[in-house]
Amino acid sequence: MSAAAARGPRVTEAVVTPVAFPDPPLLNASGVHQPWALRTIVEIRTDEGLYGLGETYGDAAHLALVRRTAAALPGLDVFDLADAYRRTAAALDGAAASGDKHGLIGPATREKTLLQVYSPFEVACLDAQGKALGRPVSDLLGGRFRDEVPFSAYLFYKWAGHPGAAPDSFGEALDADGIVRQARAMTERYGFESIKLKGGTRAPEEEVAAVHALRAAFPTHELRLDPNAAWTVETSLQVATETRGLLEYLEDPAPGIDGMAAVARGAAMPLATNMCVVAFEHIAPAFTRNAVQVVLADHHYWGGLRRSLELAAICRTFGVGVSMHSNSHLGISLAAMVHLAGAVPVLDHALDTHTPWQDGTDIVEHPLTFHGGKVSVPTTPGLGVALDRDALARLHENYTRCGITERDDTTYMRRFVPDFTVGRAKW
Amino acid sequence: MSAAAARGPRVTEAVVTPVAFPDPPLLNASGVHQPWALRTIVEIRTDEGLYGLGETYGDAAHLALVRRTAAALPGLDVFDLADAYRRTAAALDGAAASGDKHGLIGPATREKTLLQVYSPFEVACLDAQGKALGRPVSDLLGGRFRDEVPFSAYLFYKWAGHPGAAPDSFGEALDADGIVRQARAMTERYGFESIKLKGGTRAPEEEVAAVHALRAAFPTHELRLDPNAAWTVETSLQVATETRGLLEYLEDPAPGIDGMAAVARGAAMPLATNMCVVAFEHIAPAFTRNAVQVVLADHHYWGGLRRSLELAAICRTFGVGVSMHSNSHLGISLAAMVHLAGAVPVLDHALDTHTPWQDGTDIVEHPLTFHGGKVSVPTTPGLGVALDRDALARLHENYTRCGITERDDTTYMRRFVPDFTVGRAKW
Repeated sequence: MSAAAARGPRVTEAVVTPVAFPDPPLLNASGVHQPWALRTIVEIRTDEGLYGLGETYGDAAHLALVRRTAAALPGLDVFDLADAYRRTAAALDGAAASGDKHGLIGPATREKTLLQVYSPFEVACLDAQGKALGRPVSDLLGGRFRDEVPFSAYLFYKWAGHPGAAPDSFGEALDADGIVRQARAMTERYGFESIKLKGGTRAPEEEVAAVHALRAAFPTHELRLDPNAAWTVETSLQVATETRGLLEYLEDPAPGIDGMAAVARGAAMPLATNMCVVAFEHIAPAFTRNAVQVVLADHHYWGGLRRSLELAAICRTFGVGVSMHSNSHLGISLAAMVHLAGAVPVLDHALDTHTPWQDGTDIVEHPLTFHGGKVSVPTTPGLGVALDRDALARLHENYTRCGITERDDTTYMRRFVPDFTVGRAKW
Repeated sequence: MSAAAARGPRVTEAVVTPVAFPDPPLLNASGVHQPWALRTIVEIRTDEGLYGLGETYGDAAHLALVRRTAAALPGLDVFDLADAYRRTAAALDGAAASGDKHGLIGPATREKTLLQVYSPFEVACLDAQGKALGRPVSDLLGGRFRDEVPFSAYLFYKWAGHPGAAPDSFGEALDADGIVRQARAMTERYGFESIKLKGGTRAPEEEVAAVHALRAAFPTHELRLDPNAAWTVETSLQVATETRGLLEYLEDPAPGIDGMAAVARGAAMPLATNMCVVAFEHIAPAFTRNAVQVVLADHHYWGGLRRSLELAAICRTFGVGVSMHSNSHLGISLAAMVHLAGAVPVLDHALDTHTPWQDGTDIVEHPLTFHGGKVSVPTTPGLGVALDRDALARLHENYTRCGITERDDTTYMRRFVPDFTVGRAKW
């Protein structure tokens, strides 16, 4: 061949910016959301003047590792994801695994830490690749299998406002009526055709009552209930009986692969998880025991978009459905989720998103919008979202002022409910 | 976003050319290679003047389906592999599944047929994408995890020449001495550091003797033996005992997932397969029973390079090794295999290739070359190989003259050995 070896845009700088944005007091099995949610925004800049965006968790220990990796990226060819992965691994060599206080995806391991830190850089490289090529990220992932990606309303029990602050615009939801009201507001505004209720915060019978109330109010919407493993196997089976025929899936009723397998043997509906299958090493034990029927993928901890596609392929191969998990996030993550979902050949369920709870706050210009509960897969180059640098500065200013450096729903909850118990299998 | 939606190069024409090239009389469990090996060359041409190359089987029924698909591709955006897949499926709708007379990968199914027909077009689209972008195909697959890909010598028992023709340059190999001679010639010329012996053609004790002779002659080379499921479980276990400590892996000793699982329980070495796990539906039953420890991927029937990467991810997740299978092929397939192998994060074993048996015949200019048994992953745009149009015309002329329209080792063998029995588990 006479053609010269390809050399793509190279990273000159990777800028890491922690941000914070207002978050309502959403109740969950670990406690309650703090007044500020944290994220870290990654921007890689290249010698061709392009930039690529990524978004990840904002917790201090994670932020430190993201910064450590960013410092190792100058010179990286944005097309060489294998090198990006090697540089991340080398940058983390010797670092302690960074735990998560969200309490959702189990103990930290070096592998999980590596995949979490790598993820925003992989997304940023894909964004830069797409911009260099004039192609949307979904094309780089194998093409668009759908033009629109369906999302689910994500309901939470919540207080009227953070203690000591004025009530927020979402209002209180502490019983079935409040939940139905919240569902009405959210589905009217976004057009969602499926509804997920975050449970694990009231007695199981109250949450079952809320599901029945939702079904009465929304006869044709898909419904899901997710208590974040707050129930025993016995309680889970009881709830499964009492919600039979009502749920698209029951998400993480009981802790662990063993617990889920035991529930699965007795429950009529599929079980979904983003707690007991959160790393590649969990797949074989969970799938061979038929412990879960749906995996909620999340590129933030599965190691980016390509690895998440691999996860989806594994699920498809084993007859396990795919949906998508969400934490509080901004518009870069939403775009990444939409490109990924667009490129998954078989997508069985609407995706989770916290977007409505961010109430319009974002760090991208013209955030992707929901119509009929769906987001169109961008067809413009890269992720299809542009950084709003003024908003980034404002949200970074929030971060420096808010005093929160890691998500810790439990400690915050105990300020107001001193005897609050986090609990796996607490009911 | 103000940027316009991306539109990539679009297919104006997909040219399908069957070719034939001389093939030595290589013995195997199904019979013996015919004097001509068949392939189909796919060239997609685009409105931007680029072309992309793919290569697949040459059997008549398959060729007809490839042609049918080619006719459906004009207008395809070469970046939209999802659309390429949909067009392939639509073109095949109503077509009968095309069987293979190679007898290796089991009964034809619609799913297998679709993946086999789609594969050369996916490769050709990736080649065109890479050329449009100035990037090697391995970059489009996630980056290069290695710069060189190791291959294995692929030994066959063989006659001195085709009956009625002059002896070929490779010489006869009908016993252990002949096999060692062949191994010496092949390793000296190509530098291979691992050696695979195609068995299933002599009595098992002769093939075991050949393995011992190879070990004596090549004390440090990795050795493999592949009888194409010509043995019973009992014979397989006997061979496993007699070759203990000598083999990197034993490939497809006995037929079926059941047979392999039974052998795996008693054999000390890993078992490899390209016969009992040849479609995604086989993975769960085989892996959950630990029937195989290595899968020989082959993008020609796993549905292209991206699907093969998914296969590799599944294998990695389940602790199953990956290697690569080969049929008689030309330089487009070699390049595709090398890009794929370059992009597989964990590659456990050297790849199979029939390249030495083609003795320099090719349809690409400057075919990729072997040094120390390895091929460098091309860093030039696309697959990194250019079509030699004169050679293509010559090999197509072979095809029209040779009179062979499908591979059928068994019928050809029976011309000379009328009572030849193909057989699964024949020993």
